[in-house]
Amino acid sequence: MRLHIRFPDGRLARALIVGLLFSCGAIERAFAQDALPSWNDTASRARIIDFVHATTTEGDQGYVAPEDRIAVFDNDGTLWSEMPIYIQFAFMLDRVKTLAPEHSEWKEKEPFKSILSGDPMGVGKGGEKGVVELAMTTHSGMTTDEFAKIVADWFASARHPTTGRAYSEMTFVPMRELLDYLRANGFKTYIVSGGGVEFMRAISEKAYGIPPEQVIGSTIATEYAIVDDIPVLKRLPKIDFVDDGKGKPVGINKFIGRRPIFVAGNSDGDYEMLRWGTAGKAPGFAMIVHHTDAQREADYDRNSEIGKLDKALDEAERRNWLVVDMKKDWKKVFGFDK
Amino acid sequence: MRLHIRFPDGRLARALIVGLLFSCGAIERAFAQDALPSWNDTASRARIIDFVHATTTEGDQGYVAPEDRIAVFDNDGTLWSEMPIYIQFAFMLDRVKTLAPEHSEWKEKEPFKSILSGDPMGVGKGGEKGVVELAMTTHSGMTTDEFAKIVADWFASARHPTTGRAYSEMTFVPMRELLDYLRANGFKTYIVSGGGVEFMRAISEKAYGIPPEQVIGSTIATEYAIVDDIPVLKRLPKIDFVDDGKGKPVGINKFIGRRPIFVAGNSDGDYEMLRWGTAGKAPGFAMIVHHTDAQREADYDRNSEIGKLDKALDEAERRNWLVVDMKKDWKKVFGFDK
Repeated sequence: MRLHIRFPDGRLARALIVGLLFSCGAIERAFAQDALPSWNDTASRARIIDFVHATTTEGDQGYVAPEDRIAVFDNDGTLWSEMPIYIQFAFMLDRVKTLAPEHSEWKEKEPFKSILSGDPMGVGKGGEKGVVELAMTTHSGMTTDEFAKIVADWFASARHPTTGRAYSEMTFVPMRELLDYLRANGFKTYIVSGGGVEFMRAISEKAYGIPPEQVIGSTIATEYAIVDDIPVLKRLPKIDFVDDGKGKPVGINKFIGRRPIFVAGNSDGDYEMLRWGTAGKAPGFAMIVHHTDAQREADYDRNSEIGKLDKALDEAERRNWLVVDMKKDWKKVFGFDK
Repeated sequence: MRLHIRFPDGRLARALIVGLLFSCGAIERAFAQDALPSWNDTASRARIIDFVHATTTEGDQGYVAPEDRIAVFDNDGTLWSEMPIYIQFAFMLDRVKTLAPEHSEWKEKEPFKSILSGDPMGVGKGGEKGVVELAMTTHSGMTTDEFAKIVADWFASARHPTTGRAYSEMTFVPMRELLDYLRANGFKTYIVSGGGVEFMRAISEKAYGIPPEQVIGSTIATEYAIVDDIPVLKRLPKIDFVDDGKGKPVGINKFIGRRPIFVAGNSDGDYEMLRWGTAGKAPGFAMIVHHTDAQREADYDRNSEIGKLDKALDEAERRNWLVVDMKKDWKKVFGFDK
């Protein structure tokens, strides 16, 4: 549809057009100034803005067509806090407590015994087999629709163990701003996480404005079945795909079929994704969220058990990956910070 | 950004606004009239338009929020012709001929022997093992980037065996119009095919306006590796996922994480997808492309070897699935039809 409005005075029309063009330029500059307001005015913020500017400026060497502006983000420790425990692990613990009345045998069986006796860190006592059993017990044996409801209900009532906040509030404000900023510049934003895809999909739209189809993660096997003449998908106690480490580029290629040009992670589990995402024809941008803020979140990651960040951090400078220092680069961490 | 334009005459402004509103209504009606121009004015066309109208009309019982307007389409026989052979099978045959000089042993080994001696339908002589070997030989052993180039190059030069047309011309015009029509009404369109995902992704944007990330299909395993210090994904001779029959709802749930509300297929391989896609809370629409046109394409599908359509056709009426009769419902099949 083309719209023609004829003005009685040609000069007025020209003045209006010139005025509009001028406003757009001013708005663009104002927008770049206002972008990422919870970031301090450091070199990190400037590098991100420069990259996005080059990517979106036709004629620039770094220009990338809109359809190729794919940005991928790890979730735990990159978009929301993974401290003191992974949020999905907190879900498992609560789920075990909910299901315990139907499983009297758990009182004597690891890893359930440790969880029920109030020692969640004791789950390791059951070994790797125990951990897999814990994951399968809490994530399978129901239909996909039933699981989606279980997770949504849990997110509605669960609270973070140290802050007492809803988990949707445990997202990093500067990263949510970065997602918004990239989308406003024509990027398609994805989560690429080692976490379970159907767990994250229950919250991704609300927490990050990312729809379910743009969440890539680990999957368990599902099976089509007819129950009472209704077709359902049953979640089976079997791992289908682990979207971590070397699995991340595999998952990105499988689900998206394009190489991203913007990659963000926070641990060595993101190393291969960072490498692969910066090795395409288009200039790729990689960034690492470095947890340095003991006061507002947590100071960990070097040689840590959760979110171990060694290899990626060691190679960051050589590979020109941006290391974001949470303490120095971020004005705010959480929305509830003063 | 809000735009204020002040007109010297308030009446002129009101007249303009009324005029614009009137034009929009007229345009909408004209658009519905003009939708699907290569479809005859039959009950099939009316049912599709009625469904889309209900889906997009706020306040209507059938209204569906834009983010839930997911439409999935089988590819072979639904969006493009699968006659006389699957297009991906034609690719395999050509690929064997290209690779033959490096494989003198193929002269005596099935299924390669049959292909090289000009009897492609003899591939069955090697049994199922032979067919899998054929698929793996032609689809693995290279990086994902290399495979994408091989497929793109093939599509650029390959021609359909009976029409002599490029394969991108073997798409069904009425179905391309349907994709456009759904997208114009806020639907997100996906391919959900038994074919190889990385084969279809090379052509999906050009052929259907569907980007790679909206193509779901069968996958072979890939592996992250560093070659000459460059990270690549190697395609392995191993099937990862078969996106056919019961695999289709599994694939949709895995990749999209939402249940579609519009499902189109043409064979019993789409049966489970048709069932599952119409069993959600929102009113789902299912349609079957029934191949009845011997003159313009092919009259087959009932009890056929390729594109067998028995169970889904038998149950269509009972389940309120639209059966599109290509001969009666379509003015045109291909773009090159007179």
